[in-house]
Amino acid sequence: MVRVCVMQEKRVSSKSTPTDLVTEADQHVEEVIISTLREKFPSHSFIGEESSAAGEKCVLTDNPTWIIDPIDGTCNFVHSFPMVAVSIGFAVKKQLEFGVIYHCFDGTLYTGRRGHGAFCNGVRLHVSKEIDVSKALILTEIGAKRDNHTLDIFLGNMKQMLSTPVHGVRIIGSSTLALCQVAAGAAEAYYQYGLHCWDIAAAALIITEAGGCVIDTTGGPLDLMSRRVVAAGSREIADYIVQQLKPISYGRDDEDP
Amino acid sequence: MVRVCVMQEKRVSSKSTPTDLVTEADQHVEEVIISTLREKFPSHSFIGEESSAAGEKCVLTDNPTWIIDPIDGTCNFVHSFPMVAVSIGFAVKKQLEFGVIYHCFDGTLYTGRRGHGAFCNGVRLHVSKEIDVSKALILTEIGAKRDNHTLDIFLGNMKQMLSTPVHGVRIIGSSTLALCQVAAGAAEAYYQYGLHCWDIAAAALIITEAGGCVIDTTGGPLDLMSRRVVAAGSREIADYIVQQLKPISYGRDDEDP
Repeated sequence: MVRVCVMQEKRVSSKSTPTDLVTEADQHVEEVIISTLREKFPSHSFIGEESSAAGEKCVLTDNPTWIIDPIDGTCNFVHSFPMVAVSIGFAVKKQLEFGVIYHCFDGTLYTGRRGHGAFCNGVRLHVSKEIDVSKALILTEIGAKRDNHTLDIFLGNMKQMLSTPVHGVRIIGSSTLALCQVAAGAAEAYYQYGLHCWDIAAAALIITEAGGCVIDTTGGPLDLMSRRVVAAGSREIADYIVQQLKPISYGRDDEDP
Repeated sequence: MVRVCVMQEKRVSSKSTPTDLVTEADQHVEEVIISTLREKFPSHSFIGEESSAAGEKCVLTDNPTWIIDPIDGTCNFVHSFPMVAVSIGFAVKKQLEFGVIYHCFDGTLYTGRRGHGAFCNGVRLHVSKEIDVSKALILTEIGAKRDNHTLDIFLGNMKQMLSTPVHGVRIIGSSTLALCQVAAGAAEAYYQYGLHCWDIAAAALIITEAGGCVIDTTGGPLDLMSRRVVAAGSREIADYIVQQLKPISYGRDDEDP
């Protein structure tokens, strides 16, 4: 698919902070996805970025639940920077069953189903088996908070990685597409404070099915609602990152703001 | 073109620092490009990343000169992280005449010719006309030096941008492809200390032909050999960045190391 080169005007507003952007497209895409799925599965539950922003409760129950990010990389989308994705995860009894992530600019589709592997346009994905962090490419994202204290911790964590030294650190502006690169073995790890359950749900399953590990920044099991994650091809690199990171508090998705 | 999802083994070594990588492919691609061009234009001069690394002088004269980065984003290439480009600029009497940049993963071709515009796969490119830096998406790259002092300045500059606040900062690991995003209007600006003339030659012409400005980090005219650049859609945003940056010294391309 040919790269979209043309800048189009978009109506933009902001949510939690001036840099936490949302467009009419985010809201419209989520409405289309949820209404389509609800028609087929009227008893299912839905957690979506824009529904949550509009005040709906963001709680994962045992009920079959679709976890949706209609446009991941909204800031990129606003600028037509070509890293934008739609992410849909599906959980039953709080266990992720499948996930799909669609790269809107190049048409790549990442999929994963529990026990059945992960794929990129039908080609089986395998994580990097590198265990030497000094040969790792590490991905992260900045998060919405830009206060002095948060930036100091964020940049301190980045310095910790760069002075390891790792091969490199990348920030592409889409958590889900960055996580897909870990699943594809094109990066060794990803860490972030400040993402949401809709950023990680589909990707966590895809990475796990590609042979990787997705854990909490404390080293324990992933907590989808905790707004923090370390994902890596190998447990060795995940553990190294866990040991280096200083935490940034973003609260939880399932608590009232 | 379908995203390359498969990791292939590559023979990797390092140049100036442990994180300044080079592969056999870098050297082979440069040899192919230079030998092909030299056959057609035997009187022309060549400046190439790998020829320079091998000890050839990197001096821009009045002679028609091809300035070549055979693989920009070598670290990405090593990891199969899909941001890798070939960049070829051409200068006569030290003035850039045309540039081509090929995105190897998605097949996008960026071109520019002095006085004739800039294009992406044949579609005319126009920079962003945004002048409000708080609405800007800013791109940068880390550079090869990872000592404590350099990292502190690099991260301090990044903090300065993030706390402006700008919409976002991205690091994709390929200077040329990042600069192409400025040409395409998908990012407002790019700045870097530590890049080389082969990273900026083609892109500088493409951005200029797309209506943007490419200047020195001091605010003066671009010096191709200075290893530093600020590029932006608007002069207003370029000037803002110039005022914020603290310099990192990387020497010059045309002085002996």
